[in-house]
Amino acid sequence: MKKLLLTLLLALPCLSLVAENATWIWYPGDYEIWLGNDLQNRRTQRGTFFPPFWKVDTHYPMVEFSTEVNPTEDETISIQAEGKYNVKLDGTFQQGMPSSLVIPAGKHQLNIKVFCLDRVPALFVDGKTIQTGPAWKTTFEDKEWIDESGKASDKSGTTYMPAGSWNFNLSENAPSRFHLPTLPMSPVTAVKVNNGLLVDFGKETFGFPYLHGLTGTGKIHVFYGESKEEALDTQHCELLDVVDVESDTTSELLLTNSKAFRYLYIETEGDRSIGSVDMKYEFNPLVYKGSFKCSDTLINHIWNVAAYTLQLTSREFFIDGIKRDRWVWSGDAYQSFQMNYYLLNDNPTVQRTLMLLRGKDPVSGHINTIMDYSFYWFLGMYDYYMYTGDKEFIRLMYPRMQSMMQWILSRRNSRGLLEGQAGDWLFIDWADTPMDKKGEVSFEELLYCRSLETMALCANLLDKQGESQQYADLALNVKTILMKEFWDKSMGAFIHNKVNGVSDGTVTRYTNMFAIFFNYLTQKQKDGVKDKVILNDNIMKISTPYMRYYELEVLCTMGETNYVMQEMRNYWGGMLQAGATTFWEKYNPQEKGAEHLAMHNRPYGKSLCHAWGASPIYLLGKYYLGVKPTAAGYATFEIRPELGDLKWIDGSVPTPHGTIKVYKDLKTIRVTASEGQGYLFIKAKKPKTTAGKLEKVESGLFRLPIVGNGQEVTVTF
Amino acid sequence: MKKLLLTLLLALPCLSLVAENATWIWYPGDYEIWLGNDLQNRRTQRGTFFPPFWKVDTHYPMVEFSTEVNPTEDETISIQAEGKYNVKLDGTFQQGMPSSLVIPAGKHQLNIKVFCLDRVPALFVDGKTIQTGPAWKTTFEDKEWIDESGKASDKSGTTYMPAGSWNFNLSENAPSRFHLPTLPMSPVTAVKVNNGLLVDFGKETFGFPYLHGLTGTGKIHVFYGESKEEALDTQHCELLDVVDVESDTTSELLLTNSKAFRYLYIETEGDRSIGSVDMKYEFNPLVYKGSFKCSDTLINHIWNVAAYTLQLTSREFFIDGIKRDRWVWSGDAYQSFQMNYYLLNDNPTVQRTLMLLRGKDPVSGHINTIMDYSFYWFLGMYDYYMYTGDKEFIRLMYPRMQSMMQWILSRRNSRGLLEGQAGDWLFIDWADTPMDKKGEVSFEELLYCRSLETMALCANLLDKQGESQQYADLALNVKTILMKEFWDKSMGAFIHNKVNGVSDGTVTRYTNMFAIFFNYLTQKQKDGVKDKVILNDNIMKISTPYMRYYELEVLCTMGETNYVMQEMRNYWGGMLQAGATTFWEKYNPQEKGAEHLAMHNRPYGKSLCHAWGASPIYLLGKYYLGVKPTAAGYATFEIRPELGDLKWIDGSVPTPHGTIKVYKDLKTIRVTASEGQGYLFIKAKKPKTTAGKLEKVESGLFRLPIVGNGQEVTVTF
Repeated sequence: MKKLLLTLLLALPCLSLVAENATWIWYPGDYEIWLGNDLQNRRTQRGTFFPPFWKVDTHYPMVEFSTEVNPTEDETISIQAEGKYNVKLDGTFQQGMPSSLVIPAGKHQLNIKVFCLDRVPALFVDGKTIQTGPAWKTTFEDKEWIDESGKASDKSGTTYMPAGSWNFNLSENAPSRFHLPTLPMSPVTAVKVNNGLLVDFGKETFGFPYLHGLTGTGKIHVFYGESKEEALDTQHCELLDVVDVESDTTSELLLTNSKAFRYLYIETEGDRSIGSVDMKYEFNPLVYKGSFKCSDTLINHIWNVAAYTLQLTSREFFIDGIKRDRWVWSGDAYQSFQMNYYLLNDNPTVQRTLMLLRGKDPVSGHINTIMDYSFYWFLGMYDYYMYTGDKEFIRLMYPRMQSMMQWILSRRNSRGLLEGQAGDWLFIDWADTPMDKKGEVSFEELLYCRSLETMALCANLLDKQGESQQYADLALNVKTILMKEFWDKSMGAFIHNKVNGVSDGTVTRYTNMFAIFFNYLTQKQKDGVKDKVILNDNIMKISTPYMRYYELEVLCTMGETNYVMQEMRNYWGGMLQAGATTFWEKYNPQEKGAEHLAMHNRPYGKSLCHAWGASPIYLLGKYYLGVKPTAAGYATFEIRPELGDLKWIDGSVPTPHGTIKVYKDLKTIRVTASEGQGYLFIKAKKPKTTAGKLEKVESGLFRLPIVGNGQEVTVTF
Repeated sequence: MKKLLLTLLLALPCLSLVAENATWIWYPGDYEIWLGNDLQNRRTQRGTFFPPFWKVDTHYPMVEFSTEVNPTEDETISIQAEGKYNVKLDGTFQQGMPSSLVIPAGKHQLNIKVFCLDRVPALFVDGKTIQTGPAWKTTFEDKEWIDESGKASDKSGTTYMPAGSWNFNLSENAPSRFHLPTLPMSPVTAVKVNNGLLVDFGKETFGFPYLHGLTGTGKIHVFYGESKEEALDTQHCELLDVVDVESDTTSELLLTNSKAFRYLYIETEGDRSIGSVDMKYEFNPLVYKGSFKCSDTLINHIWNVAAYTLQLTSREFFIDGIKRDRWVWSGDAYQSFQMNYYLLNDNPTVQRTLMLLRGKDPVSGHINTIMDYSFYWFLGMYDYYMYTGDKEFIRLMYPRMQSMMQWILSRRNSRGLLEGQAGDWLFIDWADTPMDKKGEVSFEELLYCRSLETMALCANLLDKQGESQQYADLALNVKTILMKEFWDKSMGAFIHNKVNGVSDGTVTRYTNMFAIFFNYLTQKQKDGVKDKVILNDNIMKISTPYMRYYELEVLCTMGETNYVMQEMRNYWGGMLQAGATTFWEKYNPQEKGAEHLAMHNRPYGKSLCHAWGASPIYLLGKYYLGVKPTAAGYATFEIRPELGDLKWIDGSVPTPHGTIKVYKDLKTIRVTASEGQGYLFIKAKKPKTTAGKLEKVESGLFRLPIVGNGQEVTVTF
């Protein structure tokens, strides 16, 4: 793209330097918090407003934006803001709230201050060379008069940040006006049932019911169901609307608060009648940049339904489920991030989600109130860097990472470990039998240790070696205690927890699985864990796709791709057989019929479209196509294709500015990479290629250098 | 009042217990911040929006209110909120946003959660026995699902606060609708000058110009002046409005953003003409609870003008001046608090001001960016307690005092002292010659020391003895260094500052004056300071009423009431002679005519109605009527009447629930106190009374116990 622009410039020498587009700007993270509140407050339960129960943040109401400009000739700029504002040119107020201003040729300082409560203070300035964009500075504390001898902002102690922005590149697209696009969608069937109309859209969907041909008067009751049972159970369905309209003035009704459903059941009062029902489907217009196809139609079906599940839950932010909670949960989002890197590769949604989850200082509780969810947030930050190479986002967020970790460190016990205190929710997983969460819980300590290591990595990235070492030392202390006191040599596994230094010998899967990913164990220890914990039916089983995700991932990393393929068929295939059109919050193969719908002590409490159900996207991309970055932003990568029990696989994984395509069958591998450089690993005795020099790694394993030049490389064996 | 109600109840035995009134509630401090933003953002400079340049805070957007109720019979409550809300009764959602609800007889838990961005989430619940009020709890982080085994909020770690409230006791008086009342006010003269109309209201005032009899079309230009010169100088006056109205539809124009002025100069464009001009005077309807009269009409005039100055600057909050800045500055407010205790005795305005100044965590700068202003805030907190006895406000604010002090402590140098860092403004005073503010400035260290002592006092008050001792130790360290290194024995005075441990020997008045109030000096040291510093014309003179306040106070404490009386006549009387109708930001007797109007490098930059100009109210009440509390809330007090050079004084000082009246002439003292108990001190050789036993304190000084029973006590001598 850069190359093309340069060519154009060379071809049109009389064209002056093409300016960047102006875009709306704000204090970084503030719009994300505002939009997050808007989203999360849309949750209702049977018509009642149901907002989050953790601390809800808001934006800085007063923000100053500034830039140095240097036009070669007098330049008229237009100015628009969300809020009340003033404009200073070279420190001098301009009269009123000017909507345009002439900037004289030469070097000038432009400062615009905006105040707004109900929306985020935001600014759009557009001129020939002067445009708002991420190069503008912003602050919430200008302290302009600090230095009585002058206005030298470098002495003011003011903290400036690069302005936040997204893609609001038109002056009329003010940030507060953002909404997801919609498309009309028709139902598959609409039949009279009981006293009402049951409408079926054929699969789980999301949006605004649209009623046509209204006549008569009387209230309209709309009952939503992810299942037919739920829609028809007017006393217990989770979502409903009761509305009234003047039928004299309109024969149509578009409901206002978009919701999740497959079925609508509609009853009316009085002589009200309804002609027909369809909907406006609301969605985040993200394209599938990743793909997967293989020789097994069931697996292809699973991949497609998983992709649709992720599409529905990737909205303004990565949310947990579309019916309930419609909130941004850090542990759920962490998995969405990973799936995103293999399907959508959409950075802005990851950034928005990470910024919203972190919120504002002071920290007064764990993210979403959940201790493990604070840690997933740290892990998600570094993952983001690895998959995107976007160091500037780490730089922006590092102070927020620090203050989050500072709060966590303030809660250590005398051994430097964390225990649940009043206000801390230790979630870990929804489990069928109660889990002991008292004292030092090894899973939390493990995630805590990894988060400290993440802090060390990020500090190092920003050339803060001193801080990096401090975090590394803290991590080492936790890791040492973990290995000494929670690794039970005789059992060959991590114990679950210790209360006042005493363990009851319980072993759960969580710590043991994650210790394998984090590479805290020797190969021998890992093998032991696999047999004694992961594949041991006496250890409490996992019944959510949430932790199945990690369980299957760990088996993939240990070479069990045949087993995992079969588990995918059983578990996700099982949901499909039970009628799923998107993947669920929880699935227990032992349950039957409407039992599948119940959860949280409510008959339809379970979410049937839950992001954490979509993990096959990630597993198939990372462990079958076998693609992952080995340096930030796919500067280097590896490709380790695995067939499992399949005959062939064919797919692609997005990279920051391109894609890596992989095909494998029983005799051939073909890969194409469009950027970076990496290695293709081939498990074969005597692979052959004309595309480069194969290097032997060990017996039966070779590697071939791959250059990201868009050329297809074929290896046969 | 209480007594009357009781009588009524006894008289009407069938009347059931009268419930308290319901009142609007919010998260404590949040409404104050919201209202403060509203106030401070009304500043304009020549028509341009001119908001504060420090960090501007905002309210928690999501707040939960809760209470336990226990009606003896089913009770219907009405519910109103500012914002979107939900209602839970015993943990169960009630459908929609109910505007009324039946609470069944018996014990129940009522929780109402409100979300609002543009206004403060606020609630008004009214029933026979159930009403919102300060007994309700509020939190910004309910964490309701923390404890998976139940909803025991005592385990949730949630921090609850008692709800904030003021006097919005009607459901229709929602907090966001608050505005100060207005009264119509007519000008004294209106004459044609140049091309316009010059309107004079006879004295400094504040409000909304009101134009009548408009005809024709064309813009109207309104120029405001605290002086005639300013109003007529259309190019340089500080405040102006340019407005246009459709004269077809209205012949009247009420301007919208209330402003300070004595004069209006109005010009029109086109064929626009104006019939007449008056105004709506906007004011905080506080009554003068204190009074002062004496034998000198000039002093009486000064007291009256000072009272009017304080009235004009006591608005939604105690502001600095009504023309400019119209902001809440901590150092200015600290003086308004003290004057308030002798004139208005209005606690809510003090509370609002203290809460707004402190704002929200995290602390990222000094209050108003000024180091000394942070310290005055601490001092103001304890003064408030002494004058009101309101310990609950200290309890509410203590965590905010702690986090403010924590931030200050984080900025100490290696000696435990504070130096100005980037972002810190060391104000001290407007001085005629530049003041060195580098290094360790003794005045700042002194205020810092006093603030630490204040923290120790407040911690102790709340039974936090450990914390109290820590603050006391920190204070002692600062005081020790001050006395050892900044008290110059040879000069008998504190030196101004040290840069890298070196002083240039400069002495200024500030540290020396305050060290006397704070009682950090021996009597001998004090006497030395008086002669060598305070009454020494070679030490840089003070030219603001701001520091004159303290200078005269220190002289009062040292018995110089004759001298101070004469200084009041000269300084404040000088302003009156120069035409003042309210007291000024700065007064230099050497200046003439329009020189008095200039400041901050602008011809009319000076504020001619500035709260800190009103200190005679305080000096006359505290050091001539001689009344002050010696225990919190006037539980004990002392009265030390002083005539200075007057023949008689007669006045009253408000106490929390009453008043202390004092009359003194050359032969008699008469006092009446309505609460508490104290001592009247009489300087006389042989005083006489029939009202109790006179105790001799020392030669020529007696004291008489005074009981707050409303009985007048007379002493002759």
